[in-house]
Amino acid sequence: MNDNNEALKGYRGRARQCLSEWKVTVWSDVRIVNTAGSVFEGVILPRSENFDDLHLVLKQKTGYNVGIHVDRVSSIEELGYKKAVYKIPEKEFPSDPALPNVTLLGTGGTIASRLDYRTGAVIPAFTPGELYGAVPELADIANLTTKKIFGVFSENMGWPQYAALAQAIGDEIEAGADGIVIGHGTDTMGHTAAVLSFMVQQSPVPIVLVGSQRSSDRPSSDAALNLIHAVKAAGYGSIAEVQICMFGPTSDQYGLLHRGTRCRKMHSSYRSTFRTIGAIPLCRVSRDEFQPLTDDYLRRDPARQIQIDPVYDDNVTIVYYYPGMKPNLIEALVDKGYRGIVIAGTGLGHVNKPLYPALKKAVEKGVHVVMTVQTLWGYAQMYVYDTGRDLLDAGVVPLDNMIPETALMKLGWVLGHTDDHGEVLRMMRQPINCEITEREPHNGYLVLQGGLPETEDFVKGHWK
Amino acid sequence: MNDNNEALKGYRGRARQCLSEWKVTVWSDVRIVNTAGSVFEGVILPRSENFDDLHLVLKQKTGYNVGIHVDRVSSIEELGYKKAVYKIPEKEFPSDPALPNVTLLGTGGTIASRLDYRTGAVIPAFTPGELYGAVPELADIANLTTKKIFGVFSENMGWPQYAALAQAIGDEIEAGADGIVIGHGTDTMGHTAAVLSFMVQQSPVPIVLVGSQRSSDRPSSDAALNLIHAVKAAGYGSIAEVQICMFGPTSDQYGLLHRGTRCRKMHSSYRSTFRTIGAIPLCRVSRDEFQPLTDDYLRRDPARQIQIDPVYDDNVTIVYYYPGMKPNLIEALVDKGYRGIVIAGTGLGHVNKPLYPALKKAVEKGVHVVMTVQTLWGYAQMYVYDTGRDLLDAGVVPLDNMIPETALMKLGWVLGHTDDHGEVLRMMRQPINCEITEREPHNGYLVLQGGLPETEDFVKGHWK
Repeated sequence: MNDNNEALKGYRGRARQCLSEWKVTVWSDVRIVNTAGSVFEGVILPRSENFDDLHLVLKQKTGYNVGIHVDRVSSIEELGYKKAVYKIPEKEFPSDPALPNVTLLGTGGTIASRLDYRTGAVIPAFTPGELYGAVPELADIANLTTKKIFGVFSENMGWPQYAALAQAIGDEIEAGADGIVIGHGTDTMGHTAAVLSFMVQQSPVPIVLVGSQRSSDRPSSDAALNLIHAVKAAGYGSIAEVQICMFGPTSDQYGLLHRGTRCRKMHSSYRSTFRTIGAIPLCRVSRDEFQPLTDDYLRRDPARQIQIDPVYDDNVTIVYYYPGMKPNLIEALVDKGYRGIVIAGTGLGHVNKPLYPALKKAVEKGVHVVMTVQTLWGYAQMYVYDTGRDLLDAGVVPLDNMIPETALMKLGWVLGHTDDHGEVLRMMRQPINCEITEREPHNGYLVLQGGLPETEDFVKGHWK
Repeated sequence: MNDNNEALKGYRGRARQCLSEWKVTVWSDVRIVNTAGSVFEGVILPRSENFDDLHLVLKQKTGYNVGIHVDRVSSIEELGYKKAVYKIPEKEFPSDPALPNVTLLGTGGTIASRLDYRTGAVIPAFTPGELYGAVPELADIANLTTKKIFGVFSENMGWPQYAALAQAIGDEIEAGADGIVIGHGTDTMGHTAAVLSFMVQQSPVPIVLVGSQRSSDRPSSDAALNLIHAVKAAGYGSIAEVQICMFGPTSDQYGLLHRGTRCRKMHSSYRSTFRTIGAIPLCRVSRDEFQPLTDDYLRRDPARQIQIDPVYDDNVTIVYYYPGMKPNLIEALVDKGYRGIVIAGTGLGHVNKPLYPALKKAVEKGVHVVMTVQTLWGYAQMYVYDTGRDLLDAGVVPLDNMIPETALMKLGWVLGHTDDHGEVLRMMRQPINCEITEREPHNGYLVLQGGLPETEDFVKGHWK
């Protein structure tokens, strides 16, 4: 590695050229004014290999990183040089035949691109060697293989990515992985967990999505601990479902495993952002303990044959109803060719009267309209009021306590199979993994959120 | 009152004619098959005067009422007769010059149409005399006046109703009311509370919205207790803001007062459905105690001049972003003439890249686009990632921790004042009553939901 490579590490193409012209390097402490007049101060970071050649990345004093398009740089001034001294050792990840084999699939997002919780360095750690350097505990837990599927911000995930991810999971499990961990941005991790619950069924081993809310260069990062919990849950855990592993409380006391179909991001920045909705979480995990909170889950069973079903129709959308909503909104969706509409109604699944004819017409045109509740907790119960019955008569299908975002992902997946209304209805209402449950547990409403229930009436276990 | 009137009480026009032809009466226990083949069993209830002449109302065995259009009745069979023996005494509501004067404004919804918690009767109680019969405690609390503004299910509330309600509140307060209670269906009570917080400002006295999740003919009804709490908060409470009064925990231990701009319905059926989002509730109320949980509220002050500002533009809508969302959705909204779009983005306020050009184009066409977070808790922080900055550059305005539904109501109200983008931006970001706050309290995330915080670090008070 020569000096010049190190000085512009990871930069290529236009971005590399610009840095040279501006006579700044990686670790330069700079002040940038962009073409819109905004001022950015911070240290230029090295790039990882899978980024574009148009942005430089600045670690700002707030601790947040920002990417700046080189064409938008109006002026750049070097204030100093602040090289991070830490370097991830790239030694080989040890292999121990006594440990389970876990595959980490990377999709982008904070955990895969910036994992390193002990230093100020922000060098992305993703290969097993890098991860070993950053989080040495991982080598005591499992033999780790890593595969980068793609590198996108999670808000840019979409149906093609879901299908590719489902396929990759299937391939890894067929190849003998004892568990899968998926590094994923947290923004849409709930959506991915939901759709994977339908595209990947009957898994013999755990499939654990994990991310972090604070990047690993911040002291409060949850990246390393989440990854440790996730690799443990994947390698040793008994729950062979698609699940999300993130902090339970806002502190780092323990993590929670949430069922893929019943989980939603509920805080934009807290580390304890994921909450199980309308149920209790599957399990509490810590470095030492695996404590299922329910008995009702699919057990690990290496003999079970995984089913990968990565089909979809992306012409689905969601409408959160609000008072005064006009029928032209529904009409516009039908005009634009949407084949499936999830409504998140108010209360037990209501919309205003002016929408009824528009919804009826949509159904008559073959659009599949389903009803969920925007309260998130509770059930759509459309038989309670006459108005609900009018909607049922119009062909709107209630989905009980399926959360709206899960309903959207399921509807896209179902419409990949069939366009027959009766069959769509049957598939939507037939739960695959508890996306509809007969009842909500007594402690399933905004409970088990910040801590465990006072009555610990659940099974306790330890890592084997 | 003759026998015939009593037998068809409240029915008129076609509905009355049909009942006569079918030889059934009020209190007949019947089995109805409708034209769609559905079967309904229950007791025909008397109607209140402000209903249409096309539906009969059946109390089903589930305890729920259903309205059935007479033209959809395919067969009706009388199984018996189950007259409810209870009758609300219509004696005069007592007046005591020592008590505060509270006006109850009716909008429809469970509390106004079916209030009666002691018996199986479902006769609507709304006049002071009826309310006195149903909830005698009210006479010990305040001198009650009632006015029916309209009678609609709350999902049918809309902008014209908001304006009329704001005006009515102003009139009552100008006329000297010591507090206002608004009976409202719970479905969209949060939306109404939000919009009234903007349309009615600087109130000298409390304005308390109240409803019930279980109708008063069910043993678990919350109607009476909510009404008692609300009338106390209106007549004696010190908080002169628009607020929601509903059960705190699922049990009837106490009620909570929630600030109108920071409250959302979070369970479709629980009585403790309303939750303060991103803050703590204003106050805990019980029959005996008024216990503010914060010092930060507008005090009652009879000298303050109320401001009624009931303007709006109803061409506003809300888009809950989901992965894979297509730009044609935004384009359709612009085509349909929407002037304001609230986006509930993922994470810190994100949408996918394909939407950027569509949003930019919308803004260029003069559509006002604002960003909130679909996590409900937390802040839109669009400066953190480059992608967020791209959206800011496109003219999308972040609304920090304003909850999406509050943002929609505020945007409709603001667009009633101006279409100038700079002014819209200024008004949207300038909080009127804590719809944006600088920070979230440490105990503002999914806490104070089922109970009080363990450290009771707040002021305690008693009803004067």
